[in-house]
Amino acid sequence: MSNQLFDAYFTAKAMGEVFSDHGRVQAMLDVESALARAQARVEVIPHSALAPITAACRAELYDFEALGLAIASAGNSAIPLVKALGKQIASTAPEAERYVHLGATSQDIMDTGLVLQLRAALGLIEADLVRLADVLAQQAQRYATTPLAGRTWLQQATPVTLGMKIASWLGAVTRNRQRLDELKPRLLCLQFGGASGTLAALGDQAMPVAQALANELGLNLPEQPWHTQRDRLVEFGAVLGLIAGSLGKVGRDISLLMQTEAAEVFEPSAPGKGGSSTMPHKRNPVGSAVLISAATRVPGLLSILFSAMPQEHERSLGLWHAEWETLPEICCVVSGALVQALNIAQGLEVDSERMARNLDLTHGLVLAEAVSIVLAQRVGRETAHHLLEQCCKRAVAEQRHLRAVLGDEPQITAQLSADELDRLLDPAHYLGQATTWVERARAEHFALAL
Amino acid sequence: MSNQLFDAYFTAKAMGEVFSDHGRVQAMLDVESALARAQARVEVIPHSALAPITAACRAELYDFEALGLAIASAGNSAIPLVKALGKQIASTAPEAERYVHLGATSQDIMDTGLVLQLRAALGLIEADLVRLADVLAQQAQRYATTPLAGRTWLQQATPVTLGMKIASWLGAVTRNRQRLDELKPRLLCLQFGGASGTLAALGDQAMPVAQALANELGLNLPEQPWHTQRDRLVEFGAVLGLIAGSLGKVGRDISLLMQTEAAEVFEPSAPGKGGSSTMPHKRNPVGSAVLISAATRVPGLLSILFSAMPQEHERSLGLWHAEWETLPEICCVVSGALVQALNIAQGLEVDSERMARNLDLTHGLVLAEAVSIVLAQRVGRETAHHLLEQCCKRAVAEQRHLRAVLGDEPQITAQLSADELDRLLDPAHYLGQATTWVERARAEHFALAL
Amino acid sequence: MSNQLFDAYFTAKAMGEVFSDHGRVQAMLDVESALARAQARVEVIPHSALAPITAACRAELYDFEALGLAIASAGNSAIPLVKALGKQIASTAPEAERYVHLGATSQDIMDTGLVLQLRAALGLIEADLVRLADVLAQQAQRYATTPLAGRTWLQQATPVTLGMKIASWLGAVTRNRQRLDELKPRLLCLQFGGASGTLAALGDQAMPVAQALANELGLNLPEQPWHTQRDRLVEFGAVLGLIAGSLGKVGRDISLLMQTEAAEVFEPSAPGKGGSSTMPHKRNPVGSAVLISAATRVPGLLSILFSAMPQEHERSLGLWHAEWETLPEICCVVSGALVQALNIAQGLEVDSERMARNLDLTHGLVLAEAVSIVLAQRVGRETAHHLLEQCCKRAVAEQRHLRAVLGDEPQITAQLSADELDRLLDPAHYLGQATTWVERARAEHFALAL
Amino acid sequence: MSNQLFDAYFTAKAMGEVFSDHGRVQAMLDVESALARAQARVEVIPHSALAPITAACRAELYDFEALGLAIASAGNSAIPLVKALGKQIASTAPEAERYVHLGATSQDIMDTGLVLQLRAALGLIEADLVRLADVLAQQAQRYATTPLAGRTWLQQATPVTLGMKIASWLGAVTRNRQRLDELKPRLLCLQFGGASGTLAALGDQAMPVAQALANELGLNLPEQPWHTQRDRLVEFGAVLGLIAGSLGKVGRDISLLMQTEAAEVFEPSAPGKGGSSTMPHKRNPVGSAVLISAATRVPGLLSILFSAMPQEHERSLGLWHAEWETLPEICCVVSGALVQALNIAQGLEVDSERMARNLDLTHGLVLAEAVSIVLAQRVGRETAHHLLEQCCKRAVAEQRHLRAVLGDEPQITAQLSADELDRLLDPAHYLGQATTWVERARAEHFALAL
Repeated sequence: MSNQLFDAYFTAKAMGEVFSDHGRVQAMLDVESALARAQARVEVIPHSALAPITAACRAELYDFEALGLAIASAGNSAIPLVKALGKQIASTAPEAERYVHLGATSQDIMDTGLVLQLRAALGLIEADLVRLADVLAQQAQRYATTPLAGRTWLQQATPVTLGMKIASWLGAVTRNRQRLDELKPRLLCLQFGGASGTLAALGDQAMPVAQALANELGLNLPEQPWHTQRDRLVEFGAVLGLIAGSLGKVGRDISLLMQTEAAEVFEPSAPGKGGSSTMPHKRNPVGSAVLISAATRVPGLLSILFSAMPQEHERSLGLWHAEWETLPEICCVVSGALVQALNIAQGLEVDSERMARNLDLTHGLVLAEAVSIVLAQRVGRETAHHLLEQCCKRAVAEQRHLRAVLGDEPQITAQLSADELDRLLDPAHYLGQATTWVERARAEHFALAL
Repeated sequence: MSNQLFDAYFTAKAMGEVFSDHGRVQAMLDVESALARAQARVEVIPHSALAPITAACRAELYDFEALGLAIASAGNSAIPLVKALGKQIASTAPEAERYVHLGATSQDIMDTGLVLQLRAALGLIEADLVRLADVLAQQAQRYATTPLAGRTWLQQATPVTLGMKIASWLGAVTRNRQRLDELKPRLLCLQFGGASGTLAALGDQAMPVAQALANELGLNLPEQPWHTQRDRLVEFGAVLGLIAGSLGKVGRDISLLMQTEAAEVFEPSAPGKGGSSTMPHKRNPVGSAVLISAATRVPGLLSILFSAMPQEHERSLGLWHAEWETLPEICCVVSGALVQALNIAQGLEVDSERMARNLDLTHGLVLAEAVSIVLAQRVGRETAHHLLEQCCKRAVAEQRHLRAVLGDEPQITAQLSADELDRLLDPAHYLGQATTWVERARAEHFALAL
Repeated sequence: MSNQLFDAYFTAKAMGEVFSDHGRVQAMLDVESALARAQARVEVIPHSALAPITAACRAELYDFEALGLAIASAGNSAIPLVKALGKQIASTAPEAERYVHLGATSQDIMDTGLVLQLRAALGLIEADLVRLADVLAQQAQRYATTPLAGRTWLQQATPVTLGMKIASWLGAVTRNRQRLDELKPRLLCLQFGGASGTLAALGDQAMPVAQALANELGLNLPEQPWHTQRDRLVEFGAVLGLIAGSLGKVGRDISLLMQTEAAEVFEPSAPGKGGSSTMPHKRNPVGSAVLISAATRVPGLLSILFSAMPQEHERSLGLWHAEWETLPEICCVVSGALVQALNIAQGLEVDSERMARNLDLTHGLVLAEAVSIVLAQRVGRETAHHLLEQCCKRAVAEQRHLRAVLGDEPQITAQLSADELDRLLDPAHYLGQATTWVERARAEHFALAL
Repeated sequence: MSNQLFDAYFTAKAMGEVFSDHGRVQAMLDVESALARAQARVEVIPHSALAPITAACRAELYDFEALGLAIASAGNSAIPLVKALGKQIASTAPEAERYVHLGATSQDIMDTGLVLQLRAALGLIEADLVRLADVLAQQAQRYATTPLAGRTWLQQATPVTLGMKIASWLGAVTRNRQRLDELKPRLLCLQFGGASGTLAALGDQAMPVAQALANELGLNLPEQPWHTQRDRLVEFGAVLGLIAGSLGKVGRDISLLMQTEAAEVFEPSAPGKGGSSTMPHKRNPVGSAVLISAATRVPGLLSILFSAMPQEHERSLGLWHAEWETLPEICCVVSGALVQALNIAQGLEVDSERMARNLDLTHGLVLAEAVSIVLAQRVGRETAHHLLEQCCKRAVAEQRHLRAVLGDEPQITAQLSADELDRLLDPAHYLGQATTWVERARAEHFALAL
C-alpha cells in the first residue's frame, strides 16, 4: 500500500529516491557487483563471472513485493535478495552463480549498501547546506544594520539587527558543515566481515579482497568490521539532529516574526500558499511548520538510534532492525526541512518599517539599558538599576515615553544631559557589534568554502 | 517513490491499509459526507445536495500525487482535498458544491478523519490482543508446572515455571486491554470547531449540527473542540507504547531462552524462516527481533507525540505536523509486533528436558535459598546466610554438588536431616505459587472477556 | 555533594521530600515493618519480634552516605539497607533479627517502597490538579465572554474568548484526573514475590502473608508479582507526561500572550519576579518557563521508562536501574510545573482592552469569515471565497478597513446590506459557542468532583 | 532535601563535584572575576576594583539555599548570584561594587560558567577514556587468539576470539576520543553578548573586553554569541551519548557472557559485590548494570537537548531551562559508566576452557560454514548450502557430531578428504582475521596517543 501523501511537503524528492525500495535494492546490488569485481581482481573468482553477475545487479530485475514477503521470513533483506540474485545469474550463466556473495554475510551487504545510500544522502545534504549558507550570508549582509527589537523570554529587549539574527542561523549551518566534514572518514567505511566478522571464509585472501572491495566502492577500510558497533551511523544521525534543531530555530524565529502582532518578516508568498479555506487574508508559515516539525520529530527518531546501540555480540536481533526504517526517516525529514529553509531564506520578505514601529512599542523602555550602563558608571550599578527601574515603572504607569520621564527626573538629569539622553534612546546608536557578528559569521562561512 | 520493502515484516497488512493514502483520504471524505448528512438532517443544507456530495466522497476519484503536491503548498491535507472535492461535485451538480464543508475548518476534517482511522486501528489491535491473550492463557495453563531456572540479573536463581512466565506476559496484555477500554470514550471523539474553534460560522445551528455529526459518525461529542489539546491522541499512543514494551519483554525472554547455550524455548519453525546464508543450522529468532525492534522504536516515536503537546493557541504550526506521520507509524509498528507475538505464542516449541538439565547446571546452588530460609528460622538470618554462602563457595571451588557439600557440613546437618536436604534441593518442591499466578492471570483475562 | 540550586524553582517542596534519600529509605523501612506485622498476624513470626523491628524501621537511624557506598557494591538499595536494619535490630534484640525480611527479595522492598512513594506523589498531584481545576473553572467563567483574537498558525483568526481558552486548559486537567483515577488500581499494588517471584520461601504461608501485607499497606494484591512487568509504573509516568504536556500548552499560550507585541495576559507580578538585571522594565514569564521546560523534559525522561520495559526474565539488570532516578525525576518536574501553573492561574492579569485593540489590528480581516459564510450561502463557496480574498487583498494593499472595502464592492453590496455588514464585522457577534464550551468544560469538572 | 543515595553507584565522584551547587556557583564566580580582570586589562574598570571582586568570588561565601529561593523568583541563577556578589563586594569595598558584571547578561555568566564546568567534565571523561583504552588494548592483545563462539542473533555462529571482541570495544572508544577532540574548538567557547547579544553596553570596548575575557578563561572567542544557538552543547551531549551507547554494548556483552549458561567471562569479584540476599552463590553483573542503565538513560536525556534547540529569538524561555539539569545529568551518568567499565576491563575474569566447551555445544555445527565455503567452490553455492543444511539437520536430528555426519555422506566425502574435514572443523583454524583486527584497533589507539 502507498502512503506518500505528505512526501512532497516533508521530504526532498532526491532524498526520497535514495531511500526508496529501488534505492535500497540497487545499493545492495552495487555491493554485490563490486564484491565480484574485487574478487576477480585478486583472483578469487574468474573474470568470466563478472559479466553475468554485473548484468544481474540491476534493481529493475527484482520484484520488491516478493522480496518484502521473503524478508518477513528471512529476517533481513539481503538473504532473499542474494537468493534472487543467484537465480537471476543462474538463469543466464549457471557457472557464474557460485561466485556471487563469496565470503560475505547478509549484514555486510545491508550495511555497506546503507553506507552507499548515506554517502548519497550526505552529498545531497551538504549541497543544500552550501546553498543555504550562501543565501544566508547574502541576506545577513543585506540586513546587517536593519534594526529590530531584540527579544529575550519573548519580551522586547535592546535592539538587534536582522542581519545579526540571520548570521546566527548561518553560524549554525557552518558548524554543521564542519561536523559533516569531520565524520566522513568514520561514516564512509566498508562493512565486510563475513559470518561472525572474522572473514574466515576467505582465508588468506581476506584482506586483499577487503581492500579491493573498499577501493571499488571508494570507501575506507575500517580497522575492523562494525556489525555491532553502530556509532558511525548514530553519529551521522546526531549531526542530522543538530541540523534539524538549527533549522527548527529558523522556523521558530520566522513564525514568531510573522505573527499578526509582529509582522516584521515573512516567508515568500506564492499563489495558494498558506492560504486558509476560511480566512482568506492569512499567510500561514507553511515552510516554518516543516522546520519546526522536523526539529520535533528528529530528537525522538534519533533517540531510537542511540537506544539501539548496545547490540549483542557479533550481530544483534531487534536493535539492528530498529535502525532500518529510522535512519532513512531522519535523512528524509531533514532533507525536507532543508528544502523549506532554502526557499524561506531566498524569498524572505522584510518589513523594516514595521520593525522600527515595533521597536517603539515600549516607549523607549528597551533602551533603558543604554541609560543604565552609563548611569552605573557614575552612581554605581545597584543605584543606577534602581533609579532606572523607578523611571521605567513610572513610564509604564503614566503611559509616557521613557525619554520624557527621564528628562523630568532630577537624579537622572544631574548625571546625563538632554543630548546624551537623546542619543542613548536612539536604537540606531545602540546596535553594538551587530555588524561585527555578521562579518565574522560570513568569514567563517567563506573560510570553509576554500 | 515506494519504500515498503520491510512492510510485510514490520506491519500488519490491515493496519497498513488503514493508514495508506487511500485510508487517509477516504476517512476525510467520510467526514465530509457525514457532515453533509448531518447538516441536511438539521436542515442547514437541502437534502438534494446529499446524493452528489456522497457520490463524490470516494477516495478512488482523487489523484493522490496531485494532492501531495498541493499539500506542500497548502500546509495541510484537507485544503486541497476539499478543493478537489468541490470541483468533483461541481462537475456533476454545480448547485450542490456550495453545501460541502460548511462551517468546518481543515483541522476538523483531518482530526475527525484521523479518529475514524484510529477507531479502525484500535479495533484491529484489540482483536489481536484478545487472540494473543487467549493463546497465552492456554499456554500458561499447559506449562503451569513445567520448571525452568528463574533468572535474575541473567543469573540462574530459584526455579520458576514456564507457565508462570507466560502468565506474566498475559497479565500485561490484560492490563493493556483494560487501558484501551478506558481511553475509548476520550479518544473516539468528534473534532468540530470551525476556524478558531467557536463554530461561529454555523450560528444557532452549531450545536445541533455538531451533535448530528457525532451521531452520524458514532463518535462522542466532546466538551469542546480539541484542536490544540492533543492528550486524547497521545494517550492512545502511550498505551500502544505500553503494548510495545510488554511485547518487547516477550521477545527479550524468547530470544534469551532460544540462545544456543539455553535452548529451552523456540519460536515456531517454518521453511526458510530464520535461516542464515552461511550458518545453515541456525534458528534465528526472526519474530522476537520484530518485538524487540518495536519496543525500541515506539519509545522514541512516542516522545515525539509528547513533545508536540504544547500547541500554540487555537492551531499549532509544526507541532501538529509532527503528529501526522508519527502516530500512524506507531500503530503500524505495534500491529506488526502483535502479528509476530501471536505467531510465536501459538507455535511455541518447548524443550522441558533441556530446562531440567539447565536447572542442574549450578549443581544445586539455585536451591540454596530453600535451605537458607529453613536454616534462618533456626539459627538467624545472618548466620544462615553466611553459612550457606560458605557452602556454596565450597561447592563452586571443589566443583561438587551443593547437596554433597551440605551433607558434609556439621553446622548444617546439626539442623537439617538428610531427608530434609533432599527435599529442599528438588526443584519440583520449590515452585511456590507458580500455579496460583497462572490461575490468577487467567482469571483476570477471563473476567475481562465477560 | 549537593546539587539543589534549582529545586525551589523546578520542584514542589513536598514532592522533593517524597523522593529524598529520607523518603526512599523510610518507604522501604515501612515495607519491612509492615511485612513483620503481616507475618506476625499470620503467625509466621512471633509477635515479640514486632517491637524491636518497628523501632528499627526509622530512616533517621541510618547513615545514607554509608548506604550509598554499599549500594555501589550491592547493585541495589535494599541489600545494604536490610543488612543495616538487621544490625540495628540485633543491637537491641538479637533474637528478633532473624524475623526481618523473611521470604522477601530486594526488589520486593524497593518496588513496594516505590509504590508507597508514588501513592504519596499521586496524592500531591491530584490535590494540585483539583486546586488548579477549581481556579481554571472560575477564571473560565469570569472571562467566558471576553473576546480576543483566535490565533491559528500564529496568525490572527476569527475571535475566541479568553474563557474558552482557559476552558480548554481545564478540559485537559479534567481528563488527566480521570486517567489518574483509572490507573490507581493498577499502580497501587503490592510487589511481593521473593527471589524469583514464586514466594516459594514462604511455603503454604505465602498467600496469607501476601494478602496480609497488602492489607497492612493498603495496597492491592496483584494477580502475580511484576518484577519485570513494569507497565504499572510506566503508565503512571505516561499520565504525568500528559499532565506535563497539557501544562506546557498553558505555558506556551501565556508566554505568547505576554509578548510585548501582544501584551494581553500576564503572569502575576511579584517583587523581584522575572526582572532582568539589564532590562528593568521587563516582566519575564518566569512561571511559564517552568511549564515549557517540564513539557520539554518529561517526554525524554518518559521515553527512558518505555525503553526500559523489555526486562529480562525474572529480574532485569540495567533496565530496572534506569528507572530508579528517572521516575522520581518525572514526578518532581511535574510537581514543579503544577506549582507554577496554579500560581499563574490564580493571579492571571488580563488586559481586555488591549485584546480588543489587537483584534482590530487586521482592520477587520479576522472577521472576513463571518462575511464569507453568509455570502457563500448566496453565491456558492468558491465564488464567495474568491470575492472575499480579493476584498481582503485590496484592504491590505490600500491599508483600508475591510468594512470600507466591502462597502465599496458592488458584488458584495448586492448581497449584503450595510447593517448586515456592520453586524458581521463586530467580534462580539461572532463568538459562536464560546460560552457553551466554558459551561461544558465546567460541567465535566464539577461532575468529576462528585 | 538530599537525594544522593545512588550517586556512588551511578556517578564518578569528581564529576559529581563539577556539577554540585558549589561547582556551578564557583564556575559563575570564576567568570565574573575573569570579566573584572579582562575589563581592568583594557581599562574599562580600575585595577583597584580587582582585589575586592576577586575576594568575593568564592562560592563558600554564598548561601545556596537562599540562592535557590531567589532563583525561583528570578528565573535564572545568575541574577541572584550577581546581586549577592554585589552585596558581598559592597560590604568590604563599596566603590568596587559598581565594576562587577559590567556589560554582561545573566546568560553570559551562566553559559560561560557552564562551559568551564564542561571543560572540566571533558577532561575527566577524556582521562577515563584513555585509561579505558589502554586497558582494552592490553586485554585485546592478551586474548587475541582465545577462541569463543561468535554469536549472531544470540545464536552461536562461527568462532571469534575474545581479543577481537575487546578490540571492537576499543575501536569505539578510540572513535569517541577523536570526536571529543574535534568538537573541542566548538564547545570551549566564550559566551558574551550582553542583553540581546550585541555587547552594545560596552561600546567601543566590546571586542577588546570579549577577547581579553576569552584569553583570561582560556576559551575561544566564537564568531558571535550563541545564546539561542545551542548546537555546541548538544553536540557534546551527543558524543557523550555515543560513549554511553558504546559502553552499553560492553555491558550487554559482559552480562550475556556471565550468564549461568555461558559463564565465559566475569566482572571482577569483590567482597560483598553483586551478592544476593537470598542467592548467595550468584555473581550479579553489578557493573554491567550501570553500563546498560546509562545506555538506556542517555538517549532519552539527550533527546531533551535536541528538542530544546529551536530557542526563540535572542533568549529562550523554557527550552533553555530544560538544559540546566539535563546536560549535567548526562555528564554524571556517563562518568559513572566509565568508572564501571574501567573496573570491569581491568579485572576481567576469563574462563577460556568454558569457552572451548561452549564452542562444541553444537557438535560442530558452528563450523559448518568452513565446510560450506570450500564445498561451494567445488559444487556451487546453492548446492553446497543445501547439502550442508541437510547434514546439519541430520546431525541435530540424530544428535551426532557434524564431523561424523559429514564423514558418512558420500556427496561430501567425494569432495573433501577426512584430513580436510578434520581441519575444517577445528575452531583454531577458523579464526580468520581476528588478530588482524586486534592489531589494527591497537594501532589506531596508539596513533591517537601520539
